[in-house]
Amino acid sequence: MTTEIRLDSELELENPLFIEGLAGIGHIGRNCVSFLADNLEAEKVGELHSHHFPPYTIIQDDKTVKALQNDIYSAEINGRDVVLLEGNAQASSPQGHYEIADKVLDFTDEIDADEIITIGGYGKGEVVEQPEVFGAVTSEEIKNEYSDAGVQFDHDVGQIVGISGLLLGLGESRGKSGIALLGETPGFLMSDPKSTEAVLEVLEKALDIELDYSSLDEKVEESQEVLKKLQNLKGSKDKDESSQSSDLGYIG
Amino acid sequence: MTTEIRLDSELELENPLFIEGLAGIGHIGRNCVSFLADNLEAEKVGELHSHHFPPYTIIQDDKTVKALQNDIYSAEINGRDVVLLEGNAQASSPQGHYEIADKVLDFTDEIDADEIITIGGYGKGEVVEQPEVFGAVTSEEIKNEYSDAGVQFDHDVGQIVGISGLLLGLGESRGKSGIALLGETPGFLMSDPKSTEAVLEVLEKALDIELDYSSLDEKVEESQEVLKKLQNLKGSKDKDESSQSSDLGYIG
Amino acid sequence: MTTEIRLDSELELENPLFIEGLAGIGHIGRNCVSFLADNLEAEKVGELHSHHFPPYTIIQDDKTVKALQNDIYSAEINGRDVVLLEGNAQASSPQGHYEIADKVLDFTDEIDADEIITIGGYGKGEVVEQPEVFGAVTSEEIKNEYSDAGVQFDHDVGQIVGISGLLLGLGESRGKSGIALLGETPGFLMSDPKSTEAVLEVLEKALDIELDYSSLDEKVEESQEVLKKLQNLKGSKDKDESSQSSDLGYIG
Amino acid sequence: MTTEIRLDSELELENPLFIEGLAGIGHIGRNCVSFLADNLEAEKVGELHSHHFPPYTIIQDDKTVKALQNDIYSAEINGRDVVLLEGNAQASSPQGHYEIADKVLDFTDEIDADEIITIGGYGKGEVVEQPEVFGAVTSEEIKNEYSDAGVQFDHDVGQIVGISGLLLGLGESRGKSGIALLGETPGFLMSDPKSTEAVLEVLEKALDIELDYSSLDEKVEESQEVLKKLQNLKGSKDKDESSQSSDLGYIG
Repeated sequence: MTTEIRLDSELELENPLFIEGLAGIGHIGRNCVSFLADNLEAEKVGELHSHHFPPYTIIQDDKTVKALQNDIYSAEINGRDVVLLEGNAQASSPQGHYEIADKVLDFTDEIDADEIITIGGYGKGEVVEQPEVFGAVTSEEIKNEYSDAGVQFDHDVGQIVGISGLLLGLGESRGKSGIALLGETPGFLMSDPKSTEAVLEVLEKALDIELDYSSLDEKVEESQEVLKKLQNLKGSKDKDESSQSSDLGYIG
Repeated sequence: MTTEIRLDSELELENPLFIEGLAGIGHIGRNCVSFLADNLEAEKVGELHSHHFPPYTIIQDDKTVKALQNDIYSAEINGRDVVLLEGNAQASSPQGHYEIADKVLDFTDEIDADEIITIGGYGKGEVVEQPEVFGAVTSEEIKNEYSDAGVQFDHDVGQIVGISGLLLGLGESRGKSGIALLGETPGFLMSDPKSTEAVLEVLEKALDIELDYSSLDEKVEESQEVLKKLQNLKGSKDKDESSQSSDLGYIG
Repeated sequence: MTTEIRLDSELELENPLFIEGLAGIGHIGRNCVSFLADNLEAEKVGELHSHHFPPYTIIQDDKTVKALQNDIYSAEINGRDVVLLEGNAQASSPQGHYEIADKVLDFTDEIDADEIITIGGYGKGEVVEQPEVFGAVTSEEIKNEYSDAGVQFDHDVGQIVGISGLLLGLGESRGKSGIALLGETPGFLMSDPKSTEAVLEVLEKALDIELDYSSLDEKVEESQEVLKKLQNLKGSKDKDESSQSSDLGYIG
Repeated sequence: MTTEIRLDSELELENPLFIEGLAGIGHIGRNCVSFLADNLEAEKVGELHSHHFPPYTIIQDDKTVKALQNDIYSAEINGRDVVLLEGNAQASSPQGHYEIADKVLDFTDEIDADEIITIGGYGKGEVVEQPEVFGAVTSEEIKNEYSDAGVQFDHDVGQIVGISGLLLGLGESRGKSGIALLGETPGFLMSDPKSTEAVLEVLEKALDIELDYSSLDEKVEESQEVLKKLQNLKGSKDKDESSQSSDLGYIG
């Protein structure tokens, strides 16, 4: 077993909503879900570890090390259970992407989560003045609900790379329904607070919550620090150039 | 298990002919078999999923997501059972190509299919005026039959990359017989209707069927849409540059 | 199981000598062993198949397909059993190289072969007038025996990539003894008959056999045809550029 | 099983300290631990072999071959057991890095080693006059102890690539504590004796030992020979260009 979800204790949830946001273009997914976890005062309930993550270990500001991992949080929104998956790494190989997505879907099966929101970025390749939030859904009827929350379905995004797409694409045949929210971003920004906020505003309406954005800048700055570290090519021992360039590709 | 064939129900077939056409150069294999499935009013009977496919999820025109997969169809030609394998993805690694080919061959064993036609493109690297259909066979006596149907065996094609070759090469030692039909194509066209039609004309003669080409343009256009999406490098979250470039390699 | 040796029947051999020559620089290993098999009128006794080979299928001159594979031959030299491993493919990944080498060593264990000769090329990067045959051994005492047969041990070759090295390096801890014979070659020739002949002359002396070189040119030409096909980048369906370029790397 | 630790006999140790130093930037880790093993007159007690190492076999100066491997040594420092892991190879893929780190951590569990020191280099990308030794720890309280020994914690190193980071990052959740010592080095030197000595001086103080540096130059020269061989691109049979370039990346 090369990918593993470790829970601190058994989760007793009812029809929870599952929200995923991991490292990716503009770091939008991760920043949104990390911000959500903070605002909802979510409780950390588990971790996902995988041999398919890039073979790095992060040195944090206090000079303690931290393995790449995804964290699982539990919270409540208006009386409904919510489970969040957040983290600084995705798989570093095609097979790894599928294996991790399958493990996460197994986990959603176990906790009876049939509704999934995945969050990522859509790299436009040019400056974005007013970032839109593009949507892709498991079935057409979901579009109405999210159109009202500000999601744009009139777009040309043709594919989703990585876990945000696989959870929905593979999840559909397991009976999951859901949406991918893709914040429009230039694609060359390490972290995009404007686009992150655009996605959060959609979530605010869709989930009927109120978010306190005052801590967003701080959150974004924090994750920018991590990104800087991951992209600092000189600061590494045993540098494997080929894996590094490809790994940075998907994080960039 | 990282590659899996899921059947809707058990198939009861007699000595079926197996025809494969997946994403590849000029998209000829997939377009031919997709067109065949339509024209034969084939019934979808199963799917092939694999962790070895590229880690993308397609966003369709109606903004619903669709995992990469291969579809299995059943039809009848002049009283003979025919099983079709069609789809928008091949493996993204050497080992994946072999694993998927072996799974498909296991499936042909299960349904007692000993005759295989695989369809692909031969990228010439230059403009092709009148596309030929080149053949490669499991044994020499098959050549005669297909020469009459217009297949050209006087060619310099030295190898077949991917499933169209492996099904025959590995299948031979399992007692399979068959032919690979390779439509001549420039290699830089996303989709090549002329070459696709050339292969279909061969199949018409070889299988003694009549095809209605009026829907071909439409079919080709459809698949061209999918291709455009897969090649639109900007429209992706979590872009893994290295996997992307290599994946597009084989799809191009 | 992704690598498999299939024997036509159980081999009953006594202390056989095992000789390996697969596709590689200048195609020297394969050409030598293929030539040896012919000259010794060796009997084909089995095959090695692997999911780690490049995902190609060769189209032979008669337009029949052939999967990449390694062939196992049995012969006799001066009353001693000899087993030959010859073929047109090596693994396409580091892990594959180790897996195949381990399978071959398992096989040598089964047939009680404790002595191994591996044959490859040493790419010099420049024109080679009089190709030397460089040697690397499992233990120093083997050098004397082969020095007399013309092997040069005064060289700077620092490493052996692929199966010719792994069989000896990994074999040593299994109690195998042996030598790698590396024919000096420019490295940019698809096939190098001069270097091939130099290695064969060493084998002639070391094994006390007499070889008829009249068929060498023919043999070399044949394998050159296969190489041309493998390197003809245009003649392929479903071209996976990344795997292709890396695969050709080791074959070149 | 693709990674294996083979012990010569069962180890009976009490609360041993585990020190890792493998091939990497400036070869600092390996040179330090190899030097330590010599100075402590450590006994070789086992080996680590892996299918994830690069597929090379080294030809040593006496022209005998040697598979890439890591060696395990046992020694005593001031009455405390010490286990050393030293060697000329790390994994050649992300998954391999994790698999090997997990195997090594399993081994530390078996021998009850809860304290780990890993040694590597930090490639600065420019000339380094007085190399510092940067530290990263599993918990903050460890910093004090090592600050006294000369380790610099005021640095910008953001990540550790490969086993030196993974042993600590993954080890932390197994209850291990420890430090990574990263010798500052230009990054373009094959081997860096100045930086190696700086790390050794830290170890001298931290472990309260006295080292005889007279043999260091010799040791460094020796490992430089091995490096030269690994980097001599021409001296190889069956050259797999893609794997070679990526493998050399991490060794450089």
